[in-house]
Amino acid sequence: MPSLDPVLRDRMHRYWNAANYLTVGQIYLRDNPLLEEPLTLDHVKQRLLGHWGTTSGLNFIYVHLNRVIRQQGLNMIYVIGPGHGGPGLVANSYLEGSYTEIYPHVGRDREGMRQLFRQFSWPYGVPSHVAPETPGSIHEGGELGYSLSHAYGAAFDNPDLIVTCIVGDGEAETGPLATSWHSNKFLNPARDGAVLPILHLNGYKIANPTVLARIGDRELKYLLQGYGHEPVFVEGSDPADMHVAFAAALDICLARIRRIQRRARSADAGAAKRPRWPMIVLRSPKGWTGPAFVDGVPVEGTWRAHQVPLSDMAKPGHLEILERWMRSYKPQELFDGNGTLIEELSQLPPTGQRRMSANPHANGGSLLKPLRMPDFRVHALNVEQPGALKAEATRNLGRWLRDVMAFNREDANFRLFGPDETASNRLEAVYEVSPKAWMAETVDTDMNLAPDGRVMEMLSEHQCQGWLEGYLLTGRHGLFNCYEAFIHIVDSMFNQHAKWLKVTRTMSWRPPIASLNYLLSSHVWHQDHNGFSHQDPGFIDHVANKKAEIVRIYLPPDANCLLSVADHCLRSRQYVNLIISGKQPDWQWLDIEAAIAHCTAGAGIWHWAGHGDDDPDVVMACAGDAPTVETLAAVTLLRKAIPDLRIRVVNVVDLLTLQTSDEHPHGMDHDEFDRLFTRDRPVIFAFHGYPGIIHKLTYRRHNHDNIHVRGYKEEGTTTTPFDMMVLNNLDRFQLALDVVNRVPKLAHLRAEASQRYWSDIERHRLYVSEHGIDLPDVRDWQWQSA
Amino acid sequence: MPSLDPVLRDRMHRYWNAANYLTVGQIYLRDNPLLEEPLTLDHVKQRLLGHWGTTSGLNFIYVHLNRVIRQQGLNMIYVIGPGHGGPGLVANSYLEGSYTEIYPHVGRDREGMRQLFRQFSWPYGVPSHVAPETPGSIHEGGELGYSLSHAYGAAFDNPDLIVTCIVGDGEAETGPLATSWHSNKFLNPARDGAVLPILHLNGYKIANPTVLARIGDRELKYLLQGYGHEPVFVEGSDPADMHVAFAAALDICLARIRRIQRRARSADAGAAKRPRWPMIVLRSPKGWTGPAFVDGVPVEGTWRAHQVPLSDMAKPGHLEILERWMRSYKPQELFDGNGTLIEELSQLPPTGQRRMSANPHANGGSLLKPLRMPDFRVHALNVEQPGALKAEATRNLGRWLRDVMAFNREDANFRLFGPDETASNRLEAVYEVSPKAWMAETVDTDMNLAPDGRVMEMLSEHQCQGWLEGYLLTGRHGLFNCYEAFIHIVDSMFNQHAKWLKVTRTMSWRPPIASLNYLLSSHVWHQDHNGFSHQDPGFIDHVANKKAEIVRIYLPPDANCLLSVADHCLRSRQYVNLIISGKQPDWQWLDIEAAIAHCTAGAGIWHWAGHGDDDPDVVMACAGDAPTVETLAAVTLLRKAIPDLRIRVVNVVDLLTLQTSDEHPHGMDHDEFDRLFTRDRPVIFAFHGYPGIIHKLTYRRHNHDNIHVRGYKEEGTTTTPFDMMVLNNLDRFQLALDVVNRVPKLAHLRAEASQRYWSDIERHRLYVSEHGIDLPDVRDWQWQSA
Repeated sequence: MPSLDPVLRDRMHRYWNAANYLTVGQIYLRDNPLLEEPLTLDHVKQRLLGHWGTTSGLNFIYVHLNRVIRQQGLNMIYVIGPGHGGPGLVANSYLEGSYTEIYPHVGRDREGMRQLFRQFSWPYGVPSHVAPETPGSIHEGGELGYSLSHAYGAAFDNPDLIVTCIVGDGEAETGPLATSWHSNKFLNPARDGAVLPILHLNGYKIANPTVLARIGDRELKYLLQGYGHEPVFVEGSDPADMHVAFAAALDICLARIRRIQRRARSADAGAAKRPRWPMIVLRSPKGWTGPAFVDGVPVEGTWRAHQVPLSDMAKPGHLEILERWMRSYKPQELFDGNGTLIEELSQLPPTGQRRMSANPHANGGSLLKPLRMPDFRVHALNVEQPGALKAEATRNLGRWLRDVMAFNREDANFRLFGPDETASNRLEAVYEVSPKAWMAETVDTDMNLAPDGRVMEMLSEHQCQGWLEGYLLTGRHGLFNCYEAFIHIVDSMFNQHAKWLKVTRTMSWRPPIASLNYLLSSHVWHQDHNGFSHQDPGFIDHVANKKAEIVRIYLPPDANCLLSVADHCLRSRQYVNLIISGKQPDWQWLDIEAAIAHCTAGAGIWHWAGHGDDDPDVVMACAGDAPTVETLAAVTLLRKAIPDLRIRVVNVVDLLTLQTSDEHPHGMDHDEFDRLFTRDRPVIFAFHGYPGIIHKLTYRRHNHDNIHVRGYKEEGTTTTPFDMMVLNNLDRFQLALDVVNRVPKLAHLRAEASQRYWSDIERHRLYVSEHGIDLPDVRDWQWQSA
Repeated sequence: MPSLDPVLRDRMHRYWNAANYLTVGQIYLRDNPLLEEPLTLDHVKQRLLGHWGTTSGLNFIYVHLNRVIRQQGLNMIYVIGPGHGGPGLVANSYLEGSYTEIYPHVGRDREGMRQLFRQFSWPYGVPSHVAPETPGSIHEGGELGYSLSHAYGAAFDNPDLIVTCIVGDGEAETGPLATSWHSNKFLNPARDGAVLPILHLNGYKIANPTVLARIGDRELKYLLQGYGHEPVFVEGSDPADMHVAFAAALDICLARIRRIQRRARSADAGAAKRPRWPMIVLRSPKGWTGPAFVDGVPVEGTWRAHQVPLSDMAKPGHLEILERWMRSYKPQELFDGNGTLIEELSQLPPTGQRRMSANPHANGGSLLKPLRMPDFRVHALNVEQPGALKAEATRNLGRWLRDVMAFNREDANFRLFGPDETASNRLEAVYEVSPKAWMAETVDTDMNLAPDGRVMEMLSEHQCQGWLEGYLLTGRHGLFNCYEAFIHIVDSMFNQHAKWLKVTRTMSWRPPIASLNYLLSSHVWHQDHNGFSHQDPGFIDHVANKKAEIVRIYLPPDANCLLSVADHCLRSRQYVNLIISGKQPDWQWLDIEAAIAHCTAGAGIWHWAGHGDDDPDVVMACAGDAPTVETLAAVTLLRKAIPDLRIRVVNVVDLLTLQTSDEHPHGMDHDEFDRLFTRDRPVIFAFHGYPGIIHKLTYRRHNHDNIHVRGYKEEGTTTTPFDMMVLNNLDRFQLALDVVNRVPKLAHLRAEASQRYWSDIERHRLYVSEHGIDLPDVRDWQWQSA
């Protein structure tokens, strides 16, 4: 292995200086970018924002990665956990030319550099973090903890790609990061690319030392070995030594990666064994190369270097410190008289798509290939009559997902993700064509585990979400299945991804990526096994708060609707699609053509279930599979008890159709809404989730004051599905009573109906408490004979 | 160290059998509890629910802990990560007698045992998981990942307590659990109790092997050593050997704990060094002692044992397997003819409060001592006139929190938690009386770190939340400060804690505990530094979905209101209090007496800001500090431009007063709401969060259709605070325009106002894009001179 050539080392050092200079310039300067004049307060921004502390280290690594990319012809992207090091990444993209290619107004000359500095953390400029606007990024990093999961997601099915992932030592304290090291048990060196983690121990967070920097090298080494890595430590602060040491460490790691891959790829991929992957621990000072002391207290190497080390430029001496600091990089030797990087240095980084800032893997939409879609009609259930048949909606979907998996196996661009719940959510048909990815030890009794599996299961919702995001952001497709209640574990990750999608929607250089598809099953209404802790339908509310252009919420009422919705979602781009469907055997309503028409409309009148519904006395609306059953059962009760009551049944699949069309692209216009829900009749709305959101979505509708919603009101325990409905006043008896209480012409029945209600509930409670199961007769459908 | 006496070992084995017998009985039987007759299908529940797989292992550990508690006089509680092992904990509580003491209808005889079996996972019975109903529990465990954080929270400031924490190997894959091992860097052996983690490697999750069971002992040992532990491995399946080995392991660990504590307590606690804490890795078969094979496939030792190993009792041979299995525990030798545990065994467990199921630390309300509360009026800002003064609300609060810390230092029952953000959120005055807890290495430049610190900072919101929950559930007090956007990281943990509070509210044997207090700062409207990724006010919506009795949401408009609210919250019990307050210098409105009156009312008219507000043309409502500033600025603009416009200003502190009184205990009655918001005047509502929730909260109000809400609509980036308002249409110009557009008598001004609006915005944008800071003159208050 060649050691670092001194001439090259000197060039790399100067290139690092250039990146650092541009970083400091972004944080501080609004003018005089090349320091051609003595620095004055007028040249300095009035508002100083940005994070210096991590950035010089990131820049250091960047120039070293550039070397190996060039020397070894690598295909590499760079995931930055400490994403607040944004100016460093912008600086490097600018040095490589990709920044100017994308943003021509930021040219590679004096005026361009002035623009570069000025725009940073400036209104109508660019964000201070690594952001979607930053070329080469698939990872925002504003919220810490997901870098390694993203890196692995990017590496899956990209055998030639090396994803270098900087893990910040602050970030390393987060839960998601702490478990994401175990991703190496799911990466197959024969089929997947490599992840090279670099744990950057710069020792401090915003205001505290980091845990991993203060447990000693011995414990840290054990920890990383325990995570399945073989770490190489590089520690110091003298740049000359550090260049040599870090270059050597990189060479060692890349050689090991090559060896691991060569070995795995020479044998049968299916028999690949989990190697101990190399990684680097880089211990360098926070704020490296910045001011050592300011106002008599140490800055470099402490938490004080985290953001802007000199934040009040009016203080005596601060302007001089800044100028001295910036001139220490010798800008006049880095940039020519026009402000252009000198030839010697501009030839240092890789070119074209090998530049990390221009690698197409970091711009997944540019690589996106549509899935080959199997015909979901093949899996349609034969529903001859509504309510004639029970089926498990997700199990049926599993068969179609199996076909999706099979159809796209050759392209290797589809994976299914779930936290140990894929079988529990009854999607196990997929195992017929793909096992679960597994590189750890196996024993004889194991089933459906293999190194080349495409179903990703680890008991960490964070990991599933992070992997999938990384997979999507690099241009592939996937679906995340999860218990409904526990998807809240990734609420904040969803937020960040939704924000990414929102921002990139309008960025022409980032073509759309595949949607992030959630299938939530084992939902609130069927938790007989697990009870109250597993009951929470609030992810709907969480998703609905995000930008309307990028979120979709589907509540298919039965298996055929689920097929239609899922097919639509897997074809879509740049959305988050939330699909909620039960897994238990339940009644089926629509044949496949009716299901497609219904799902395409998003909401519609179910004439077959209603009665006199051209001029109804009441609208019985429902959204969600379990509430749909209750609504139809209530209709049955009512039709038997009050034959002349005119009932309209409306089912809503696409929840956001309820919003007005100016609030959501799927929103119905007012005429259509009035056509379904009337302008003045009572609406009894049985809803899958918390009732409040229906009011939130419909408050602008004409008939809003007549909408009476039943939904989950946080009552539950281990009990029967029907009793769950009773506890939350969403059961058929309650819905029927609501109708009686709201329809004016039924006023005379109210006392009797209320009595009847209590006797029905009492009968149910007695039965359930005796038998531990639901009343056997709560499933009779009246309209079938009507 | 004495080895396990064979007579005692035999007794312990039979006690384990008894616990296992009662576990299987709970899962399967509705009658014939003592198997006095041959088992028939009639004796078996129709619905079979529960989790067998983990439970025999939990029972094994339980009986061993009982031994050491008795022999060594220990004060110990038991935190069960794999909380689905609920029947085992119920069984042990029943064996110890505590179950019958709390639930007398479940007596210690045949009929009681029948009740015990019948009620489990049965409607109107008890949940299948370790739940609030389970004696001795502070940890539900339905959602996995938080056991170790809870255990450490319980151990803090309880020097005599040992918290034994079972970490499931499935749970160990979650992010929160993976980082919670590092809690040992924050536990002071001199002052705090001990946590004894037992990693229970039973090898499988629902449907997959676990990662930690398949990385080999060597890597696993490194991992645990890297986490700072010295693990003792116990592995096997032969009960006799395992009893001996596990007893020895326990003795070793407890001796080490004693040694660590003795050493730390003999010296100055402040100088305590971090020890390597002992722990146990227990590798035992999943479904241990259960059926080895069912239908020809292996069950014991595989994932098939996870739930109910025999789930279809109608299948040939299954009833016989069940009977054989249950009889293998020899119930007739464990229970007498009445169904009472035989004397020899009933003397085995500890007694009274030393029983883990009756330890008062697992019933925190019973130990709760109110905080000594310093007078917050001492820290009141002197607000002579509204808008005459700017201050940092949280910095001021920090001084009062410092006093709270000081007043209660002797009782050692208050801690402050934050993910590296306490200083950033400007609460650093607390460091004057307490440093941050820190047991890892230190260097010279460190500040405010010490082993006996009471401020808990680790860069993991999960950890902060988990520690605090454990601290509260064991009867202490605390406050969690966090950036607003990132509190979503613990959405699901909040859910589980809120559910716990809801369920325990009606359990008389669990007295109320202190509320969980969140202080969210660095909020959506002041993210100049960090931008879009740090902007999310949706935790309000998330909290509002939970049961009204236990959630409170406060948006104090200034520093004095924040003091009043925080004082109220720290005195409250059994709630989750959400407080949102900015940290930046901002305008102050109310003197302390006015603030107290305003916060006590929850919402009120600010007459001093209005004009002609006894009969207003418009109501300008606001909730949140930043929207309050904008509203008052809009009033200023309007009063200057349209002097005869009658404006009422309403400020809302306690958000849930907006709901009706039947929906939330703080809800205003309709008369009061109408008094504030009128029945028919336009209301322009400037809100801190997503606008939809205001509609959701007010949809039942008379004037709802006139309420026009402005709030965060997911528009943001790195920009100035005022520009953030502009981007989200919440700025003063927009609010003023909204008034003009909604007040009928201003119709003639609309064209002009709209023109004026665009020119104001244009002026602002030009200024900001040039200077990078807000317009200097956006802060003039009109009413001061009025």
